[in-house]
Amino acid sequence: MSGSNGSINRAAFRTMECGLYIVTSRSGDRLNGQIANTVFQVTSQPPRIATSLSKSNLTHEYIAESGVFTVCVMAEEAPFAFIGPFGFRSGRVINKLEGISYVIGINGCPVITDHVVASIEARVTDSVDVGTHTLFIGDVVSARLLHDARPMTYAFYQQNLKGKTPVDSPTYIPEE
Amino acid sequence: MSGSNGSINRAAFRTMECGLYIVTSRSGDRLNGQIANTVFQVTSQPPRIATSLSKSNLTHEYIAESGVFTVCVMAEEAPFAFIGPFGFRSGRVINKLEGISYVIGINGCPVITDHVVASIEARVTDSVDVGTHTLFIGDVVSARLLHDARPMTYAFYQQNLKGKTPVDSPTYIPEE
Repeated sequence: MSGSNGSINRAAFRTMECGLYIVTSRSGDRLNGQIANTVFQVTSQPPRIATSLSKSNLTHEYIAESGVFTVCVMAEEAPFAFIGPFGFRSGRVINKLEGISYVIGINGCPVITDHVVASIEARVTDSVDVGTHTLFIGDVVSARLLHDARPMTYAFYQQNLKGKTPVDSPTYIPEE
Repeated sequence: MSGSNGSINRAAFRTMECGLYIVTSRSGDRLNGQIANTVFQVTSQPPRIATSLSKSNLTHEYIAESGVFTVCVMAEEAPFAFIGPFGFRSGRVINKLEGISYVIGINGCPVITDHVVASIEARVTDSVDVGTHTLFIGDVVSARLLHDARPMTYAFYQQNLKGKTPVDSPTYIPEE
């Protein structure tokens, strides 16, 4: 191992464990949600969370407009048929929430109720331009445990649901 | 489940999976490192990472001064005796790197070489004040796989190493 080696082995990024989430938002009467694996708590007192979303995504557009978002923590038992459309279809083309059970949370965003372990609702306090993505930071206004089930990790999703990483993901690995 | 319920159940935060890391930095000739569980990739092209660190920590002070930090992804087999001092002692009181094997990376920060799966070196591009913590965002300048071992998750750390969450952690849960 040399101190002069500045090469970037993207496989190293895969060692950083994370969960699998559907992040929802709204704009006016329109609702949308997308798969995300970059969601994390940034402070405890008060509780704040952050998520990094692609500028090209409709959910990004809605959060930028409304300043609210909700994180739905997916359960390990969620089938790919349920999760897939949130990651590989655009809300500009389909209504992703059609046929999906949800309630409207106190921030106005949909809280998906099937295959979801917990929901965390937030109001944006800061938006940071990080290049292709925006890091939305928000105060937590509600946090609930919904189902007593094991959360899905991103590693589990990739190994067991043959989950591919969309090109707009923060953790996308370009083909060489 | 009611749309009017704005209560915050902090147990919901525990459902967000994350890894366990030692984040290192330097200031002049002084080196330090601390446990962190809030480390994540925010963009892929170019690769950027972020970490949320308490303003009270010495590593925070060093990163604010030098603008560089390195993430060491801990292996599951790392014993508590190795990890513990990085989380529960301050670099203001002890030299945390004494007796620890490391090399100096291209950003000048120590890369710990025992019980570490991967290292990711970064230069800070943005610092965001998120209250008790600062979110340091950085361009990745080097990423390496060091050992073929399973990364330690924060859940594993808490369950198997009786890992407690320091009060300065972004995910600290205050006693009611």
